[in-house]
Amino acid sequence: MASVSGRFAASGVVTLTTDFGLKDPFVGVMKGQVLARFRDARIVDLTHDVLVHWPAEAGFWLSRSFRYFPAGTVHVAVVDPGVGSEREIAVVEAEGHVFLAPDNGLLAAVVDAADAPVLRRVAASALQRLGIGAPSATFHGRDIFAPLAAELSAGREQPASLGPTADELIPGWIEDPIVEPGRISGTVVTVDHFGNLVTNIDGRLLQGLAHPVVRVAGRDLPLRRTYADVRPGEYIALVNSFGVLEIARAESSAAEGLGLDRGAPVTVLRK
Amino acid sequence: MASVSGRFAASGVVTLTTDFGLKDPFVGVMKGQVLARFRDARIVDLTHDVLVHWPAEAGFWLSRSFRYFPAGTVHVAVVDPGVGSEREIAVVEAEGHVFLAPDNGLLAAVVDAADAPVLRRVAASALQRLGIGAPSATFHGRDIFAPLAAELSAGREQPASLGPTADELIPGWIEDPIVEPGRISGTVVTVDHFGNLVTNIDGRLLQGLAHPVVRVAGRDLPLRRTYADVRPGEYIALVNSFGVLEIARAESSAAEGLGLDRGAPVTVLRK
Amino acid sequence: MASVSGRFAASGVVTLTTDFGLKDPFVGVMKGQVLARFRDARIVDLTHDVLVHWPAEAGFWLSRSFRYFPAGTVHVAVVDPGVGSEREIAVVEAEGHVFLAPDNGLLAAVVDAADAPVLRRVAASALQRLGIGAPSATFHGRDIFAPLAAELSAGREQPASLGPTADELIPGWIEDPIVEPGRISGTVVTVDHFGNLVTNIDGRLLQGLAHPVVRVAGRDLPLRRTYADVRPGEYIALVNSFGVLEIARAESSAAEGLGLDRGAPVTVLRK
Repeated sequence: MASVSGRFAASGVVTLTTDFGLKDPFVGVMKGQVLARFRDARIVDLTHDVLVHWPAEAGFWLSRSFRYFPAGTVHVAVVDPGVGSEREIAVVEAEGHVFLAPDNGLLAAVVDAADAPVLRRVAASALQRLGIGAPSATFHGRDIFAPLAAELSAGREQPASLGPTADELIPGWIEDPIVEPGRISGTVVTVDHFGNLVTNIDGRLLQGLAHPVVRVAGRDLPLRRTYADVRPGEYIALVNSFGVLEIARAESSAAEGLGLDRGAPVTVLRK
Repeated sequence: MASVSGRFAASGVVTLTTDFGLKDPFVGVMKGQVLARFRDARIVDLTHDVLVHWPAEAGFWLSRSFRYFPAGTVHVAVVDPGVGSEREIAVVEAEGHVFLAPDNGLLAAVVDAADAPVLRRVAASALQRLGIGAPSATFHGRDIFAPLAAELSAGREQPASLGPTADELIPGWIEDPIVEPGRISGTVVTVDHFGNLVTNIDGRLLQGLAHPVVRVAGRDLPLRRTYADVRPGEYIALVNSFGVLEIARAESSAAEGLGLDRGAPVTVLRK
Repeated sequence: MASVSGRFAASGVVTLTTDFGLKDPFVGVMKGQVLARFRDARIVDLTHDVLVHWPAEAGFWLSRSFRYFPAGTVHVAVVDPGVGSEREIAVVEAEGHVFLAPDNGLLAAVVDAADAPVLRRVAASALQRLGIGAPSATFHGRDIFAPLAAELSAGREQPASLGPTADELIPGWIEDPIVEPGRISGTVVTVDHFGNLVTNIDGRLLQGLAHPVVRVAGRDLPLRRTYADVRPGEYIALVNSFGVLEIARAESSAAEGLGLDRGAPVTVLRK
């Protein structure tokens, strides 16, 4: 893990990933606090509908999504059941991107996926210097993360100025897939809008298996390329556009059809 | 109530609060009409999922949220069961912010909360002057509010030019809490994404009560600081990050657990 | 249909219409890919919650919404059950706007509604020239449509450079209303957030009928102007703010009250 990095060159883009939902003004006021410090920020919602109080899903999506944003983007992720307790704030810099999140395991997937991440925790003195003080006990997204993101995305603040480097952060909540000869065992991490079952099995792991077969809910599915490779209603396994194994049902919902949800086991076998 | 104000210094930021939801293009075309007149507007969604046809919830959240946006922001709120009837359009200027809404009680909470609000109603002549004419009978958000917001946020129009001041607007739909010696009686105004019960009892009212106890659904809850102060699954009362009393259940939903919804009574007693 | 057009003068505004929903980062990473090529794009969500795998609803809303955006807007619509198969990419230029979508019938309603549309299909050579290559098999919204939209909205690319004109695109999925003397027969295209039943009957068709009566679910409703013209709870037919016939229930849901959904027949008769 690199301990030194160059200067972060801010693009002005900020992404937000939370479990706040969109029915209340929580996300809106976070954006207000970004704009209050940096009027030209370009704020993009990644998602605000990850599983409530479970940081792992936010980290999973973020680790699979960040490279589609321009270098210089500041990614803020807040899933924070421990808000108001003693948990710290993590800052990760990697591949020209910066990530801000509670130090509760949320960024574990990003740290795993990114090249040469530099880990830090935000020092109280940095918050004080930036005039970020006396936050509410229950909404650090608005009171700490938003102003920090504004300063970083405006290019007025460097990650290195926020705190000393750390060797590691709090570990993540999703177990890695188990890779054995001729067999990979993983888990459904999330079910997407279409009812596709998205797993934690990276597509690169499948390259070691000739003729892989995906076993899920008692079915053996061959690995295909895209939804249109089967007829509507048929099940299919594929490496999806985010690079992980997915179980889908063409023009339908695999989750409903198979009766599966988050946490369901998925195994890949050599035929 | 002040009857004179300085010039409104537009920040270019516009917030939108409606009951339109996000499944149809209603909010999208409102933004189109803002951008059609002012390409550099920074448009932020506060929420589009407040209770349909009930202006009070929109006003409640707006009154609790506006200060997190930069001064110079134009806040548009449209919950408008009477659209197409004779109801007028209210403009409120306060603390360097401008608020636009149907004159149907929506802005009552803002008028109550803000310092020295100046109230106006939009004159037909102003709409004509701005080329805002012949609106549809059912979508004034797009046809009137969006172009007005564009002109104000671009700094081309002042609230004072939109119409004469008014002594009062149509009153609000939420009753104020009842404050008696040793007892405050209020109501759940909304249930948030996490199932927290958000009340109309301002946290400052509690300062008059030594050792307050919050009575809700037959339970007596002590007042705490943050969710992490109790164990997962336990109920808790706290003054939330928007400054009002809230009943929560740590890492769970108080609304589901207690079987309560909007309108439920909440009482604070001296222990 | 015009085969020649002037230069497209980009406004920098991009609209997005998809069936991706907002719970996953699909829309977010599309925006990331627009911003990666054009930092100053103004991206507006039209809707991401149209009926999954049914391009017609996206096209319907887009055809009724695009004129509320400034000329020079690039409208991207992706409802794409055939992603990864051989289907092509359609580009339509009309009234100073540009539309990008899979060539699967999605843009039929836009082509019908717009004045002098110029139709094209994107040539593989254009994608290559723009460095848009080797897309994922399942997410062309991110890998092809977003970068194309960026180039067009930045003004660096003209529709005419993307491919040769075409006489027609794949036809749409919604049948036109049947117009007979004294009788118009149409269909509910979508149910909006308020439970209003939105039909495919253009309000201009009703001008030929003196005293029209709208027959739906065994009821005969007079045509009115706005929701406030009847009492809360009463049913009403009106030409809505998007110019089509709509069945509503004042301050309530017509869809729930009548037990109707997409596809329900609606007839307009001469009284």
